[in-house]
Amino acid sequence: MTPEPNHSALSTQHSALGITAASGYQCAVAQAGLKSGGLDLFLLQSQIPAVAAGVFTRNQVIGAPVRVCAEHLAHPTVRAVITNSGNANCCTGNDGLKKARQMCELAAEKVGCLPEEVLVCSTGIIGVPLPLEKIIAQVPSMHWDRGAPADLQAAQAIMTTDLVPKYFSASAEIDGGNVTIGGMVKGSGMIGPDMGALPHATMLAYLTTDAAVEKVLLQELLENAVDQSFNSVTVDGDTSSNDTCLLLANGASGVAINAQNKNQFAALLQTVCTELAKKVAADGEGATHLMEIHISGAASAEDAHKVAMTVANSPLVKTAIFGGDPNWGRLAVAAGRAGIPFDMANLSIRLGDMEVLRNGEPVDFDETNAAEELKPFEVKVSIKIGSGGHSWTAWTCDYSYDYIKINAEYHT
Amino acid sequence: MTPEPNHSALSTQHSALGITAASGYQCAVAQAGLKSGGLDLFLLQSQIPAVAAGVFTRNQVIGAPVRVCAEHLAHPTVRAVITNSGNANCCTGNDGLKKARQMCELAAEKVGCLPEEVLVCSTGIIGVPLPLEKIIAQVPSMHWDRGAPADLQAAQAIMTTDLVPKYFSASAEIDGGNVTIGGMVKGSGMIGPDMGALPHATMLAYLTTDAAVEKVLLQELLENAVDQSFNSVTVDGDTSSNDTCLLLANGASGVAINAQNKNQFAALLQTVCTELAKKVAADGEGATHLMEIHISGAASAEDAHKVAMTVANSPLVKTAIFGGDPNWGRLAVAAGRAGIPFDMANLSIRLGDMEVLRNGEPVDFDETNAAEELKPFEVKVSIKIGSGGHSWTAWTCDYSYDYIKINAEYHT
Repeated sequence: MTPEPNHSALSTQHSALGITAASGYQCAVAQAGLKSGGLDLFLLQSQIPAVAAGVFTRNQVIGAPVRVCAEHLAHPTVRAVITNSGNANCCTGNDGLKKARQMCELAAEKVGCLPEEVLVCSTGIIGVPLPLEKIIAQVPSMHWDRGAPADLQAAQAIMTTDLVPKYFSASAEIDGGNVTIGGMVKGSGMIGPDMGALPHATMLAYLTTDAAVEKVLLQELLENAVDQSFNSVTVDGDTSSNDTCLLLANGASGVAINAQNKNQFAALLQTVCTELAKKVAADGEGATHLMEIHISGAASAEDAHKVAMTVANSPLVKTAIFGGDPNWGRLAVAAGRAGIPFDMANLSIRLGDMEVLRNGEPVDFDETNAAEELKPFEVKVSIKIGSGGHSWTAWTCDYSYDYIKINAEYHT
Repeated sequence: MTPEPNHSALSTQHSALGITAASGYQCAVAQAGLKSGGLDLFLLQSQIPAVAAGVFTRNQVIGAPVRVCAEHLAHPTVRAVITNSGNANCCTGNDGLKKARQMCELAAEKVGCLPEEVLVCSTGIIGVPLPLEKIIAQVPSMHWDRGAPADLQAAQAIMTTDLVPKYFSASAEIDGGNVTIGGMVKGSGMIGPDMGALPHATMLAYLTTDAAVEKVLLQELLENAVDQSFNSVTVDGDTSSNDTCLLLANGASGVAINAQNKNQFAALLQTVCTELAKKVAADGEGATHLMEIHISGAASAEDAHKVAMTVANSPLVKTAIFGGDPNWGRLAVAAGRAGIPFDMANLSIRLGDMEVLRNGEPVDFDETNAAEELKPFEVKVSIKIGSGGHSWTAWTCDYSYDYIKINAEYHT
């Protein structure tokens, strides 16, 4: 388990920098015409060979790039990442697999590395052949850059139904050196990540650091951080075919992460991942509220996580929050269907700071005040399911008319 | 496993009769003022002692009536059922438990039986004290009746956000006698039944038969029928705190069900349960389509059931159907996240009769024709996940703007 982030250890949080905040990274973007408008092609390069870790969707239906990306992750070094939005290259058969490999070859040629040193992601419509010729036409002329404007454009290039680009970075002093982790994420619908170390996107998260981290440790640290961030956020519970989270570590800071200082790095990584994950929920399709769900009193962290995600995915909870309705019964019932045993005589619920159920007995509360707790953009609910010592926090958004509109009209 | 219903064995299907279609039953209804308008109180009486079977929600949070109903089901005979709509009497603490028992006492006094011979259900808002005095005021003067108008009113009295009363009955000749099963169901939202033999309703289903069935066999037959009907229908996946399905068998037909003729009875029961379950999906909150999902090629029936329910609960699938969008990629991805392993190279998908994916390779199909397949009220999709011999059918509805409206505005 990763320790709680120690925010005091973070010297800087730059929200203006993202994927190139750490030393030794640069990126390039283009508009290839794969989606209805805007940038849709992204390249990342580490100027020195990097070590990479990655987690992928556990869905049985996976995009061709997920398969190729997982294969290439086995290579000891990584030099580049290529990503397109507008087409997920999923359910595209053997043609899709061939095109995902060709994307890696294109990026490798530009960067001057092996195709195996290139990771690849795609996001967008499923089941439509990828128009590779549009990518081929752009890659050679794409221009490398870094800094705030480049990081903003990179975050835009990976967007699909996202309304806002989502990126973040933070630095910490570790062993006298300055370590930075920068990152960006896309994802607004088909969000219910469930990523494991094995491939089986449509949330794509990219993280870069200038720390030097050994591959096995990097993978372990990434998996822990993802569990408490991207795997704790949901928009609709629909785990995508292409969910991918990649972390590159190039060592350009001169700081090596080891058994002694790994908790400091883990805390920094958790901070960046959690900020990015919350941005996904806040930009969920049609969202009018970001909802934080805190489960406590569980017998294990896994139990608490499962209850938190069941509540976060409940359409009845999400519509009640949209309606500003303090209908806490829906929270109780959603917690109860998670498959985790508990005694409802020990169930307590708070809307914001207001207790509405205490040990299975309803608390006489003022409905007008309770409704006030649901007015801010950020809403918090707390559910205690027993006297166990474990807790978990998950994030989701409400379900609005716009959720239906976006999803009934997306496609053509 | 219950055999496929043999429709040719069914002599009659009366859709005009419901809960009193079988001999020896009568019902009574009243408007107690528990919901904003209309009938909200229902009594059922078997004129001779009946044997009863029941299945209840597996949610950890259960309504007080579920607890009392499960207790009373242990009694060898049942004479009556009492039900109110407008208030679920759930998360109401000890006060709620006491009131659920008092509802049974009221009905027992009217019928002239033991309180233990009365089953009780409630449906409506959660966490609000049940105004029992309104029920006390009505029960003594309620008028017993049977036949088509009474059955219609009974089905209305149990409705909450339901738009239409849902009831059905069918008869079959078994061993030279005429056996009838009548039933009714309510439920429109918070529908994702997961009912087992143990209590742990807001779908309430009531079934009555004039066959004589021994208690253990009756329970077994009910559990099988529920699995392939009510447990295969979903509106939003939110398993309720009060889901209950009850089956009373009073023997008034003179036909006894035994090892030799039980398959005939099982087929009749399956027909009635399936018809009622489909009515729930068709009347799902905001529904503009009834969607049938057929999963085949699974290694076990359980696997097929799990995949079918995951697809049926996918917000992305449900919004695509609302939008009339042949976005079959969402079907593939939803099937893939059910947690059941399969090889996507064996995945095939049909929209209606049109094949869109064959063994993992997209089929070149006409999108306009595919969209036509999604126009009728009843839409069917078929997903083959491998070469296994097992299949399952589930039913759901689409997600429309009205789903959001109904659920964001329900409560006060």
